[in-house]
Amino acid sequence: MVRAATPEDKFSFGLWTVAWAGKDQFGDATRAELDPWAYLAPLAEAGAWGVTFHDDDVVPFGASDSERERILTTFKKAADEAGLTIEMVTTNTFSHPVFKDGGFTANDRSVRRYGLRKVIRNVDLAAELGASTFVMWGGREGAEYDGSKDVNASLDRYREGIDTVAGYIKEKGYDLKIALEPKPNEPRGDIFLPTVGHALGFIAELEHGDIVGLNPETGHEQMAGLNYTHGIAQALWAGKLFHIDLNGQRSIKYDQDLVFGHGDLLSAFFTVDLVENGFPNGGPTYDGPRHFDYKPSRTENFDGVWASAKANIDTYLLLAEKAKAYRADPRVQEAFEAAGIFEAAKPTLGEGESLADLLADRSAYEDFDVDASGARETNYVALNQLALDHLIG
Amino acid sequence: MVRAATPEDKFSFGLWTVAWAGKDQFGDATRAELDPWAYLAPLAEAGAWGVTFHDDDVVPFGASDSERERILTTFKKAADEAGLTIEMVTTNTFSHPVFKDGGFTANDRSVRRYGLRKVIRNVDLAAELGASTFVMWGGREGAEYDGSKDVNASLDRYREGIDTVAGYIKEKGYDLKIALEPKPNEPRGDIFLPTVGHALGFIAELEHGDIVGLNPETGHEQMAGLNYTHGIAQALWAGKLFHIDLNGQRSIKYDQDLVFGHGDLLSAFFTVDLVENGFPNGGPTYDGPRHFDYKPSRTENFDGVWASAKANIDTYLLLAEKAKAYRADPRVQEAFEAAGIFEAAKPTLGEGESLADLLADRSAYEDFDVDASGARETNYVALNQLALDHLIG
Amino acid sequence: MVRAATPEDKFSFGLWTVAWAGKDQFGDATRAELDPWAYLAPLAEAGAWGVTFHDDDVVPFGASDSERERILTTFKKAADEAGLTIEMVTTNTFSHPVFKDGGFTANDRSVRRYGLRKVIRNVDLAAELGASTFVMWGGREGAEYDGSKDVNASLDRYREGIDTVAGYIKEKGYDLKIALEPKPNEPRGDIFLPTVGHALGFIAELEHGDIVGLNPETGHEQMAGLNYTHGIAQALWAGKLFHIDLNGQRSIKYDQDLVFGHGDLLSAFFTVDLVENGFPNGGPTYDGPRHFDYKPSRTENFDGVWASAKANIDTYLLLAEKAKAYRADPRVQEAFEAAGIFEAAKPTLGEGESLADLLADRSAYEDFDVDASGARETNYVALNQLALDHLIG
Amino acid sequence: MVRAATPEDKFSFGLWTVAWAGKDQFGDATRAELDPWAYLAPLAEAGAWGVTFHDDDVVPFGASDSERERILTTFKKAADEAGLTIEMVTTNTFSHPVFKDGGFTANDRSVRRYGLRKVIRNVDLAAELGASTFVMWGGREGAEYDGSKDVNASLDRYREGIDTVAGYIKEKGYDLKIALEPKPNEPRGDIFLPTVGHALGFIAELEHGDIVGLNPETGHEQMAGLNYTHGIAQALWAGKLFHIDLNGQRSIKYDQDLVFGHGDLLSAFFTVDLVENGFPNGGPTYDGPRHFDYKPSRTENFDGVWASAKANIDTYLLLAEKAKAYRADPRVQEAFEAAGIFEAAKPTLGEGESLADLLADRSAYEDFDVDASGARETNYVALNQLALDHLIG
Repeated sequence: MVRAATPEDKFSFGLWTVAWAGKDQFGDATRAELDPWAYLAPLAEAGAWGVTFHDDDVVPFGASDSERERILTTFKKAADEAGLTIEMVTTNTFSHPVFKDGGFTANDRSVRRYGLRKVIRNVDLAAELGASTFVMWGGREGAEYDGSKDVNASLDRYREGIDTVAGYIKEKGYDLKIALEPKPNEPRGDIFLPTVGHALGFIAELEHGDIVGLNPETGHEQMAGLNYTHGIAQALWAGKLFHIDLNGQRSIKYDQDLVFGHGDLLSAFFTVDLVENGFPNGGPTYDGPRHFDYKPSRTENFDGVWASAKANIDTYLLLAEKAKAYRADPRVQEAFEAAGIFEAAKPTLGEGESLADLLADRSAYEDFDVDASGARETNYVALNQLALDHLIG
Repeated sequence: MVRAATPEDKFSFGLWTVAWAGKDQFGDATRAELDPWAYLAPLAEAGAWGVTFHDDDVVPFGASDSERERILTTFKKAADEAGLTIEMVTTNTFSHPVFKDGGFTANDRSVRRYGLRKVIRNVDLAAELGASTFVMWGGREGAEYDGSKDVNASLDRYREGIDTVAGYIKEKGYDLKIALEPKPNEPRGDIFLPTVGHALGFIAELEHGDIVGLNPETGHEQMAGLNYTHGIAQALWAGKLFHIDLNGQRSIKYDQDLVFGHGDLLSAFFTVDLVENGFPNGGPTYDGPRHFDYKPSRTENFDGVWASAKANIDTYLLLAEKAKAYRADPRVQEAFEAAGIFEAAKPTLGEGESLADLLADRSAYEDFDVDASGARETNYVALNQLALDHLIG
Repeated sequence: MVRAATPEDKFSFGLWTVAWAGKDQFGDATRAELDPWAYLAPLAEAGAWGVTFHDDDVVPFGASDSERERILTTFKKAADEAGLTIEMVTTNTFSHPVFKDGGFTANDRSVRRYGLRKVIRNVDLAAELGASTFVMWGGREGAEYDGSKDVNASLDRYREGIDTVAGYIKEKGYDLKIALEPKPNEPRGDIFLPTVGHALGFIAELEHGDIVGLNPETGHEQMAGLNYTHGIAQALWAGKLFHIDLNGQRSIKYDQDLVFGHGDLLSAFFTVDLVENGFPNGGPTYDGPRHFDYKPSRTENFDGVWASAKANIDTYLLLAEKAKAYRADPRVQEAFEAAGIFEAAKPTLGEGESLADLLADRSAYEDFDVDASGARETNYVALNQLALDHLIG
Repeated sequence: MVRAATPEDKFSFGLWTVAWAGKDQFGDATRAELDPWAYLAPLAEAGAWGVTFHDDDVVPFGASDSERERILTTFKKAADEAGLTIEMVTTNTFSHPVFKDGGFTANDRSVRRYGLRKVIRNVDLAAELGASTFVMWGGREGAEYDGSKDVNASLDRYREGIDTVAGYIKEKGYDLKIALEPKPNEPRGDIFLPTVGHALGFIAELEHGDIVGLNPETGHEQMAGLNYTHGIAQALWAGKLFHIDLNGQRSIKYDQDLVFGHGDLLSAFFTVDLVENGFPNGGPTYDGPRHFDYKPSRTENFDGVWASAKANIDTYLLLAEKAKAYRADPRVQEAFEAAGIFEAAKPTLGEGESLADLLADRSAYEDFDVDASGARETNYVALNQLALDHLIG
């Protein structure tokens, strides 16, 4: 039996997860759409510490200012009552037809101006509500047809948009960081900034890149066949892992948004191992929210919604427990040693050694026994089986 | 009938392409392995201006210094006689068992030292032969098992290695740039720096990143389901497109290395359109070699080898012709206008306009007719059909 | 300029294609939803000879009998006036929540009974309207979780359902054939009968399999990384290609439903070549409708809808023209000969030759020169380049 | 700690698994190639009951008759001494250049004749050694270029070849069944019979299909994004699951041949659950060998080879234990009930009920409350979490 979640676990959910009514590309909603605040108490009960939302998840698109005010007050009050922290806010620039070609990179300039306004307004809201992260998923920034975009211009516009928002945050003195969320495709044929890597490369070109990082989502990287744990590792290495979106995906196909662990389970284990235990040799760590961005399957009704919400947490906790035991196991530490995990942290050049020194070191090249080295045992498979033993043994 | 290639076209081939004898994971060589220089005259005859190679393609791994000298002299002479420019040199850090766990990121430090030495030696050779680009494909840098790597340490080692090589190039004053070649997987389960994006993000963390850029390969990006033209566009945008590897791939599967255009043809058209004609609104351009990194199918014998080499060039020239006509067609320019291609180049904020000004502009938000905008015609499909008409009409 | 379509071309469209308003998983409709009959005249104008529909495309789910009658009469009249043949009818067993777990294989028996009733009712309608094909896409037959289905029982129920419908068609004497439409996933994680092959294997187990065949869709096979032309070829070989759904898909990702040819263009060429020209050595042919099942991109408004509808037809006609020229080209016929295309039609055992004879034929094995044979030229790449020359030359 | 394997577990390995020396598309062998019999005792020690091989794994291609005899005798003796059953034999029609275009479907007729001879010779050997299954993987039957094959003729040749072999088996009275092994691609761009489904559809067209079934491989189905457990379930349903190849694959990419369970672990659990426990409602079962077709990672030396061989067995046994407990758990049985697993086995039409009766049953359609049904709980996510709890709890 897995232990109960605590606030220290920092489990957080997008409101749009449990509130998803089941409308998909091929079918109508299978569940009722409740008031946004109706999901908060049950979320807290399921073990959530935090909740996050898109502006339009709470306030209907186009609501009047007074209506907006009323709704937000109600929502905030309900969150407080449920003891939920609003840790992140994000902007919907993908549902309304006006954004059919994107928000920040739409070829139509008036749309970009509108999108920027919508985002800035939401930044104010995020700050007001005390959120620490402002996620930006540019799900409609992209194209189906290569000829329909001047990608250089689009990336210029993307940079202009993000830098404008980041500049505004700084100017206002908000304690808010931007986290870009990459995705390779769906709903666009090819989305700009399709992977963790592309977003890191993009951030390096920003003026205000210091407060811009990443919110990588498990399934989004896996939709490109990429290793999610490697992805967040590179983001950590670059000092850019600002937030995470955990869920499940089974191979390369449409965006499934399954419960965390209901996709590639072995990968989920190593994700949790990294998030909870850090790199074996130390280095940058992540201590932000454990945020779930999943969808309760359309087959379920509300019992299933809450069972699935809890399944995310339970699976995470189970994996965390196993990951702790894995790292603590002396056999694992021994296997790390045998596999050279610790040796990987030793610089290739010795302390004080110059390249000239290395070039002069005959033992490194001229006298190096490549065949013996090629025949060395790496023990990688045995180490992996140890992980599996901890996971299912 | 397509015109003949000229040196100005800068068509270039990896020696390992036509020299591939057909040995694959499941079968033996189907073609003879000739002396490396035997491929040069026919390559030139097929239309090549340049040739490139891995050290081990020309000089057998482990050859003595004198043997190496003799072979390289013969090779260089043959290249000169054939009129071929050696525009790029790259290092094989993936075939010999010593590199089974990578060269720069192997957990075993002695392997990393050996790998660095092999690469540095090859840098000297590249400079000596007058190459302008030094490609580095870290095909064995990666893992099958998440537990077998401390990715943070591995990326540290990768950075150390690349920075050491780049620093050496600068120190020596070589006129040489490093071009990293990303690939998502194969031969490793997950390769580090799996896409153009990851490599861009990595380069941003280098000390000597100014002389480090990219050599993106068509099929490598497509193996992750990514848009190759978008990939090289982002590399151009970041000032990092140093070299290109053109070939063909059909969907997400093993690395096929087909003839350029024998994979996703429509994508190949837009790749050539970008390389030849640049972005519609101007911006950074690529004028390096048109380098083919393909494999003549294992079913072919030498007639097929040379037919396939020529097919790369012919297809490229055909596509270039069509791309020129596409851009020159007034209907296309009109369609660009209608699709907002030129408007994409206009900054979202007007000249001299501050964000405060935008926030005060009621026409941008409060009075903006989102429904009318959502119903606008983008003409993207019609534009794509125009491209298709130029391609096959 | 491509010629105009004629009724003999048998171009046909699903009503749901042009009538798709743009609602997707992440966004609202971008186009108005017109009355079903409003699309018919423009479709005919675009070059369509036929139209097809799901029951619910025309008659709203749950409409009263009189409402249904009125709507169908209006629709039929409009189709007649537009000169459109209703060649195929299909049933929506995927949009309403009742079908969230499938129609014929839902674990809930009452749903299966309801689904069967809905389908049978639609069979009557199809027959009444003179359709010749009854397509069945079981888009919700499947699972996200392996444990949620007893696949053996599910396939039993699937067979029971299809056999019941087929038996009914026979009993009624309707001139109607069932065409199953495979798809690997989306909207379910794993759909039953995921490919052309699985459906062929399933049909072989039916009691009334003689009137059950296939309706393969380009993108559906490509979503599994499979070769669509090979798929319809195997269906033809098995005598089961009853209908086709043409569209475009770019690699393995969500179901894109692009215009035919706007996906894998080279593959589209060979698809058209097979449909128009048959197999090089003769054999079974397809002469049914050229049916497009695509979605006008959500970025488009109605100009784009009709431009895209026409783009399907124009592309098909262009490819057909080129495929004719390809086959007629003596160089191609020569290349076919050199590639052994005609030799492939010669049985491996000679006329009257028994296996015993072959076993006694030393020239076939003991004296066969495997090395010479291994070095033979196949000319496959040259042949492919010839196809490319015809396509874009 | 997992229990030791027993002969009753019927664990079996391809000789080519542990004997793979690590030669891949991009690199040389990292391990020594031992005599074929050298692997047998260690295999038995690791827990194997059976061993299987390709002719060329044991006898070098082109060996003289006497050499062949000598080698086979030595091998058989070693197998006997190790207590290993030779349960399956298969033919290599993919490594030698002569087979570069396939064995049974090569366009070149002399190759097909040669291939047939090689296979028939191997059938005799299989029978002589007492094997019960004769696997046929047509890895080179396929194409890179659609134009290079008349697929109808190729399938005719494939059928001719398989029927000839099957007919020979019958004629000789051998107690041997043929098991076809599907694979979507690699080493060919598109392999004929790419999935379990295509092979089932093909078998239905054979004259001697009664002794022809399937040998589905985990990774091969997953390379097409398909659900392996669904695949073997459909094969069972069709009475065609003659053998299985268990291994691991991570998403859609090159053929990884990882240890079973080191790929998609949740899927592996359900595979074992089906193989060990059958369908929840009974029906066809598999009781053949648990055959592993994997490759010890190229990073490993012989310690790693044997650790990985054992890892297959240990993982299988662990999963089998957990699958037993899963089925025995009353909460799971209750969840099965709630999820309608048992109801799925109830025919849609009642006993003695005709379709006419159903059509007359107003409760099934006219009075059926579709909205209430659409809102039913399926409990699928909760059931999946129960499986996860058993797997890792």
